[in-house]
Amino acid sequence: MTLLMDAAGLQGFLQRDFGQVAEDFMVERADLAGVTLRLRVAARHLRPGGTVSGPAMFGLADVAMYLAILSRIGPVALAVTTNCAIDFMRKPQAGVDLLAQARVLKLGRSLAVGDVLLFSEGTSDPVARAGLTYAIPTKAASAN
Amino acid sequence: MTLLMDAAGLQGFLQRDFGQVAEDFMVERADLAGVTLRLRVAARHLRPGGTVSGPAMFGLADVAMYLAILSRIGPVALAVTTNCAIDFMRKPQAGVDLLAQARVLKLGRSLAVGDVLLFSEGTSDPVARAGLTYAIPTKAASAN
Amino acid sequence: MTLLMDAAGLQGFLQRDFGQVAEDFMVERADLAGVTLRLRVAARHLRPGGTVSGPAMFGLADVAMYLAILSRIGPVALAVTTNCAIDFMRKPQAGVDLLAQARVLKLGRSLAVGDVLLFSEGTSDPVARAGLTYAIPTKAASAN
Amino acid sequence: MTLLMDAAGLQGFLQRDFGQVAEDFMVERADLAGVTLRLRVAARHLRPGGTVSGPAMFGLADVAMYLAILSRIGPVALAVTTNCAIDFMRKPQAGVDLLAQARVLKLGRSLAVGDVLLFSEGTSDPVARAGLTYAIPTKAASAN
Repeated sequence: MTLLMDAAGLQGFLQRDFGQVAEDFMVERADLAGVTLRLRVAARHLRPGGTVSGPAMFGLADVAMYLAILSRIGPVALAVTTNCAIDFMRKPQAGVDLLAQARVLKLGRSLAVGDVLLFSEGTSDPVARAGLTYAIPTKAASAN
Repeated sequence: MTLLMDAAGLQGFLQRDFGQVAEDFMVERADLAGVTLRLRVAARHLRPGGTVSGPAMFGLADVAMYLAILSRIGPVALAVTTNCAIDFMRKPQAGVDLLAQARVLKLGRSLAVGDVLLFSEGTSDPVARAGLTYAIPTKAASAN
Repeated sequence: MTLLMDAAGLQGFLQRDFGQVAEDFMVERADLAGVTLRLRVAARHLRPGGTVSGPAMFGLADVAMYLAILSRIGPVALAVTTNCAIDFMRKPQAGVDLLAQARVLKLGRSLAVGDVLLFSEGTSDPVARAGLTYAIPTKAASAN
Repeated sequence: MTLLMDAAGLQGFLQRDFGQVAEDFMVERADLAGVTLRLRVAARHLRPGGTVSGPAMFGLADVAMYLAILSRIGPVALAVTTNCAIDFMRKPQAGVDLLAQARVLKLGRSLAVGDVLLFSEGTSDPVARAGLTYAIPTKAASAN
C-alpha cells in the first residue's frame, strides 16, 4: 500500500474540484494511517446555541473519508458516498474547530469502507463517529 | 396516538427556533402517518455538477424526522439526534426540489426512532433513505 | 419491473442452497411490493428471558432482504451483504413467531439497497427496522 | 475511568448469565483500551461454503461491545442493544477463529456507544466493523 497523494496534494485537489467548500477545510495530515482534516468552524456551521450542526459534522466526516480514499487511489473525482452511519455522542465545544481522523479499512475493486472520529480541537473524547462506504469507479482502485 | 402539532404549527416552530435554516424548508404535510418536508433547493445546497450535496440531504432527513417527532410530543426544542444511517441510492435530479417523507416507528420514554425516504420532486424512485434515532428529554414523550 | 421468483420459488431456493437454516424460515408472500418472511421461533433463537436474540433478528432481516432481491434478479447465489444498520425498538413478544417485511428500494448494476421491518406476529408496532446493502454480481441485475 | 470487571470477571459473567452461548466466546483481554473477544468458530456458525455467517459475526460484535461496557459499569445484565451499523468487508478465512476488538467511545447516563473491528485470527485486515449503541439502566453508568 502506497500513498498517491499527500496533504498538500489533497488540499490542492479540494481547491480545484470543491471550490465552494474548500475554504472550510484544511488537511492537517495524510499518511498511511489515514487523514486528519480540520473544519474551520464559522457561523454558517452552527446551530442555535452555538454548537456545530449535524449536517456540518456529517460533511466533515464525508470529506475526510473521501480524501483518505483519494490519498490511496489518486485524484479520482468520481467516487460517491453510498452509505454513512454516524453516531453523535457529545455536543461539540463552542468556539473551537473540529478535527476528523479518517482511516481506510477496505479498498476493494468497487467499494471502499472506512471510519472517522470527530473531535473538538483540544479534547480527547470524540464528539461523533461515522462509518462510510464509497462506490469507486472500476479500475481506479487496486483489487482487494 | 394524537397529533400535537400540524403542518402550520411545525412551520411556525421552525421559523421561531431555526431562523437560520427555516427558509430552506416547507412543511407540506403532517398527520398521523408522518411528515412530508420540502427542501427548496438553492445554490448553497449543490455540489459541483449541480446535484444536491450529501450534507444537504442529511440535513433534510434530520429536520424531517425531528418535525415528525415534534408533531407527536409538541414543541420540545431539546430532542437531539444520536444516530443516523443514511443510504445514498440515486443522484438527485438537477433543478428540482427534494421531498422527505418521515415516519415515527417508535416513540419511547427516552428514545424516538424513525425512517425517512427522500425523493426528487416528481419522481417515484427514492434518492436516499435514512434511519434516525433521537434522544428526547424524559417526560416529554409518552411511555412506549 | 417483473417478478422472477415467487414465494414457492424462493422457498425452494432456500431449501436447496441454505439447507442448514431453511427450516427456520417460511416465505409468506413475494410480490412486487416485497417479501414477507416468517421466522419460526424455536429455542435456539432465544436469549435468556425468552425473547428472540439480536443475531436471530439480524439473520431474519438479512434473509428477507436477500430473498426480496432474488425475487427480482433470479436465483443468483452470489449476492453478499455489505452493510446493515439495524434499530432494535421493542422487545419481541415471547412465544410468537417474527415476521419480516422487506422491500427493495434500489436495484443497481452492482448494489442493491432495501429496508426491512420486523414484527411479532399479531402486533402492529415493529420490534426492529433495518436498512441493508448487497453487492450483486455484475450483469445479474438490470441497470438502475 | 476505572475497570470494574477484568477478563476473568467477564468470562464468569458470560457463563452465569449467558449459559446458552458462553462456550462460543472466550474473553482474551479486557483493559481500559477495550475488550478482545474470541469466537470459537464451530459448524453452527458457518454458511454454505465454510465461512462464518453474518448473524454469527453480528453476534460476536454485539457480545464484545456488551462486555466492553460491562467492564466499565459492572455486571449490569439489563443493558440492551438499540442500534448496530455493521459493514462486512472481507470474507472470513475458513477454519480459523474470529477475534473482535471492542472499544467504548461514550459512556453516558443512558446511552453507551462504541465500535468493534472483527479479524480472522492471524490476519491484519478486518473482515467487518460495527458501531453499536446500548441503552443502559439509569444510575448504572457514571454521568458523561
